[in-house]
Amino acid sequence: MPIAQINMMEGRSNEQKEALIEAVTAAIVQALDAPPESVRILINEMPKQHFGIAGQSAQKLGR
Amino acid sequence: MPIAQINMMEGRSNEQKEALIEAVTAAIVQALDAPPESVRILINEMPKQHFGIAGQSAQKLGR
Amino acid sequence: MPIAQINMMEGRSNEQKEALIEAVTAAIVQALDAPPESVRILINEMPKQHFGIAGQSAQKLGR
Amino acid sequence: MPIAQINMMEGRSNEQKEALIEAVTAAIVQALDAPPESVRILINEMPKQHFGIAGQSAQKLGR
Amino acid sequence: MPIAQINMMEGRSNEQKEALIEAVTAAIVQALDAPPESVRILINEMPKQHFGIAGQSAQKLGR
Amino acid sequence: MPIAQINMMEGRSNEQKEALIEAVTAAIVQALDAPPESVRILINEMPKQHFGIAGQSAQKLGR
Repeated sequence: MPIAQINMMEGRSNEQKEALIEAVTAAIVQALDAPPESVRILINEMPKQHFGIAGQSAQKLGR
Repeated sequence: MPIAQINMMEGRSNEQKEALIEAVTAAIVQALDAPPESVRILINEMPKQHFGIAGQSAQKLGR
Repeated sequence: MPIAQINMMEGRSNEQKEALIEAVTAAIVQALDAPPESVRILINEMPKQHFGIAGQSAQKLGR
Repeated sequence: MPIAQINMMEGRSNEQKEALIEAVTAAIVQALDAPPESVRILINEMPKQHFGIAGQSAQKLGR
Repeated sequence: MPIAQINMMEGRSNEQKEALIEAVTAAIVQALDAPPESVRILINEMPKQHFGIAGQSAQKLGR
Repeated sequence: MPIAQINMMEGRSNEQKEALIEAVTAAIVQALDAPPESVRILINEMPKQHFGIAGQSAQKLGR
């Protein structure tokens, strides 16, 4: 049943997202000895204006 | 105060979303004996590339 | 794949939680025409000190 | 490490989002005596059809 | 409707949590011009073993 | 900045949680080419009564 929600900045390619799903699933399976078919991954993309670090957006910080 | 966040694949109509909000709210009210006005529903839609099952995206799995 | 996370105040019985899972799953299945086995429910219980309404905790508000 | 995820209706300007990040970070720093650089803010915008109050969407309620 | 979920390390007093709810609500009200009674705060406390930074838990890092 | 929240059933040892943080962080770093120090992992443990599959709790299903 492990369900992982990953929040990240927008801008990654579909290939990177596919690689992310595959790699994080494998990591969970290995660390928890969980069956792969029980693992769910949810990716949440965010624009730079929506992510704040130390009081400023990533947009304003130029990241 | 029950607050339910529902993650689902994108592509549903506004009518389906309205029905979802109504039905889930009623279910919570009934099961918990909570006042309807205290219930909040948040719908989060996701593209198929962002949902992983058993290590592959729903897009790649053809779902 | 619908995954619903329900945040609620602690204090409900296991029977109420079981009823909640059953009723919310049925509501999602009906509204979205989703297969029941694809639905996941996550319940997150919170103490009254951890839920704020209009700037005060439910504990302080006497709810 | 405090990480705050703020769900809100879409339609705010970038200036409002920047002010939100700044003000909520300052509030967390003050209340918890946490170092500013450890605070992360995630903003999640939602269309009115995706937010339900008392069984109806904000769209249908005309909010 | 703004709903903020704050994840933080366990160990804060009820007074600090009450101050957190009050300060974050005021910050949201000010930045978004939202009515105070529409704001909800959810606090999620985590043990040090459950928070990872750069690949290690806060427990292991001695934070 | 990737922030991953992992929901899982309670009962894992601290060693498994440490391995989970390490493995998922490495997976994210590799797939997204993100600096390790920017990755945060939040583990959320749930009792079996709080996780629903196909309308029944994991407790009731005997999992």
